[in-house]
Amino acid sequence: MKKYLLAPGPTAISPEVLLSMAQPILHHRAPEFVELLKRVKEDLKWLFQTQNDVLIIASTGTGGMEGSVSNFLSPGDKALFINGGKFGERWGKICKNYGVLTEEIKVEWGCVVNPADVAAALQKDPSIKAVFIQASETSTGVAHPVKEVAEIVRGYEDCLMVVDAISAMGVFDVKTDAWGLDVVVSGSQKALGLPPGLAFVSVSEKGWRQAEKSSNAKFYFDFKKERDAIQKNQTAYTAAVSLIVGLEQSLRMMKEEGLEPIFARRAMMAQALTEGMKAIGLAPFPKESPSVSVTAISAPEGYDGQEIYKNLRVNYGITAAGGQDHLKGKVFRISNMGYLDTFDTITAVAAIEMVLKGMGHPLKLGAGVGVAQEILLKK
Amino acid sequence: MKKYLLAPGPTAISPEVLLSMAQPILHHRAPEFVELLKRVKEDLKWLFQTQNDVLIIASTGTGGMEGSVSNFLSPGDKALFINGGKFGERWGKICKNYGVLTEEIKVEWGCVVNPADVAAALQKDPSIKAVFIQASETSTGVAHPVKEVAEIVRGYEDCLMVVDAISAMGVFDVKTDAWGLDVVVSGSQKALGLPPGLAFVSVSEKGWRQAEKSSNAKFYFDFKKERDAIQKNQTAYTAAVSLIVGLEQSLRMMKEEGLEPIFARRAMMAQALTEGMKAIGLAPFPKESPSVSVTAISAPEGYDGQEIYKNLRVNYGITAAGGQDHLKGKVFRISNMGYLDTFDTITAVAAIEMVLKGMGHPLKLGAGVGVAQEILLKK
Repeated sequence: MKKYLLAPGPTAISPEVLLSMAQPILHHRAPEFVELLKRVKEDLKWLFQTQNDVLIIASTGTGGMEGSVSNFLSPGDKALFINGGKFGERWGKICKNYGVLTEEIKVEWGCVVNPADVAAALQKDPSIKAVFIQASETSTGVAHPVKEVAEIVRGYEDCLMVVDAISAMGVFDVKTDAWGLDVVVSGSQKALGLPPGLAFVSVSEKGWRQAEKSSNAKFYFDFKKERDAIQKNQTAYTAAVSLIVGLEQSLRMMKEEGLEPIFARRAMMAQALTEGMKAIGLAPFPKESPSVSVTAISAPEGYDGQEIYKNLRVNYGITAAGGQDHLKGKVFRISNMGYLDTFDTITAVAAIEMVLKGMGHPLKLGAGVGVAQEILLKK
Repeated sequence: MKKYLLAPGPTAISPEVLLSMAQPILHHRAPEFVELLKRVKEDLKWLFQTQNDVLIIASTGTGGMEGSVSNFLSPGDKALFINGGKFGERWGKICKNYGVLTEEIKVEWGCVVNPADVAAALQKDPSIKAVFIQASETSTGVAHPVKEVAEIVRGYEDCLMVVDAISAMGVFDVKTDAWGLDVVVSGSQKALGLPPGLAFVSVSEKGWRQAEKSSNAKFYFDFKKERDAIQKNQTAYTAAVSLIVGLEQSLRMMKEEGLEPIFARRAMMAQALTEGMKAIGLAPFPKESPSVSVTAISAPEGYDGQEIYKNLRVNYGITAAGGQDHLKGKVFRISNMGYLDTFDTITAVAAIEMVLKGMGHPLKLGAGVGVAQEILLKK
């Protein structure tokens, strides 16, 4: 049985990237690798839509999140975090570990934060030094209004706008500089279609100023050390060389396609999947602002979402994702990241139809696929 | 744009086979390779359902066809060939090149030979020394009644039953020994999902007896030399080592699945494709006995088959096949060979629907897919 990776990370990897990473390994201080890093550094700026250097760290995205707390805050500092899912929750946990006092905006799972609530929180406590948010909350499949929240945060000179864009960057628009995002984190195993193992962090001037004041302990995730290194086209510690070789290949392919066409194609695929699901009576889980990166779908009444997820894998070789925490059994999730194209969306819709049919659902096979095809049609 | 190889050869290759062939190359006389050949030789017997040694030649299938003429016939000998398509025609051309006098049974493209016609031809001229046939005629997508024809040929002590099973072996049942097939040819780039470059030939005792009388010139395709070599787990000339390493991997995966399950799965995929096409008003080209290996579909009235084929490639990255000779523009063909599974069939049906819709066809998107899904459904 052929295998399909439709989980929201790690995502499917292109043959081009796999082949590039299968080349003999370079030493991380070899001139050839330094040259490569110089090119990749520029390409990452393009991806992040920023003039800032983008740090390249050998860790998963969570390492980038940890560093985004430890490098900019000190014990006793106050931070606001948006908690509308598993990953929002994580910001709070990291802050707690670093002695940062947190203010939390709880958002119902499946909903987005109301920027007015952020404005109110900052107005109430102007000593807040950072706002932590997800661009795409993978656990619920919603995209928070990062641009709008950033506009509010920009009004506070000592407050940083810190964005977990791990599953957003390269899927939909995240304008680091134009929106005034101070710290933006991403990772290799999502849109870039690389194995897990790289975190990317962009830091603004405002961010670096704040970093000067931070007294928190850090060593491996010391962003200033990484900044000094990347300016010399190096990494502070041993670089994950083969992943960075793959990164160059992945970014080359993304640049060939172009950011706008990528965003348009991903949006079209997400729409095709969502409308395909609706056509067979399945509702998207998000109540508002569904993320293009991952589509969370509510299991139909009387059907176990975990069973759907399991049948996709066992009967059809498709790895999707189930629901987390209290959504377990209630939703299943299909990724729209990595090396996927038109017929992966068709495959997802067709397979979900077939799994449900096999479970006794009265849907009409092909009904959802037809609607997805209509959206994906190239004339 | 992701690429899909749905042409009737070369066919898609599994990652497992690709990885096996990417290993450091072996020398063809190294003990390790001799051991490998010993195992592969047994696996090929399993695939061919024969006790005969199966020769492994570094050429495409056509080399195996040439040798199947040059090794068993002499100039002035008479042979009968079934000509119902491009590959049937090729038997005639090879015979002519080797001074073999041919009797031809012309079969309308899309039809199969009537075994009674073979019986009549042999009765009329019992000096005929070989009958040449295709198990699957790739140009028209029909499967000739090999078993029935072989039963007739078996009655003639000096007449060989020579079968081009290049695109049949490993897709549907071809029982070399049980059906009394004297010479059976196949190739690497079809069901086995390997790159082109290997021909396989099984020869019966009756075949080897005939070979003793052949005066035709041959050197590279000297089957007796190959037989003597393979008995020592070698090849007569340099072996295509990496392809044979891939062959072992491919055969290992086929043995894990089992012949009967493979045949059942391929038949189901071909049926799903065919019924999917019928559901949107497209007719299979064959008038009888469609081959499981490749589905030839008539372009609908007013639509150019070449344009369908071209749009599949340009708009959706799918390489299918057009029609050959007088079928050019009238049919297009979708392969069911190589590394393909459920969702490749879904992809083929969905893409054909989308291409036709894009060309202005009034079909209902998803109608064919739904019918295909029903057949492919795993409960």
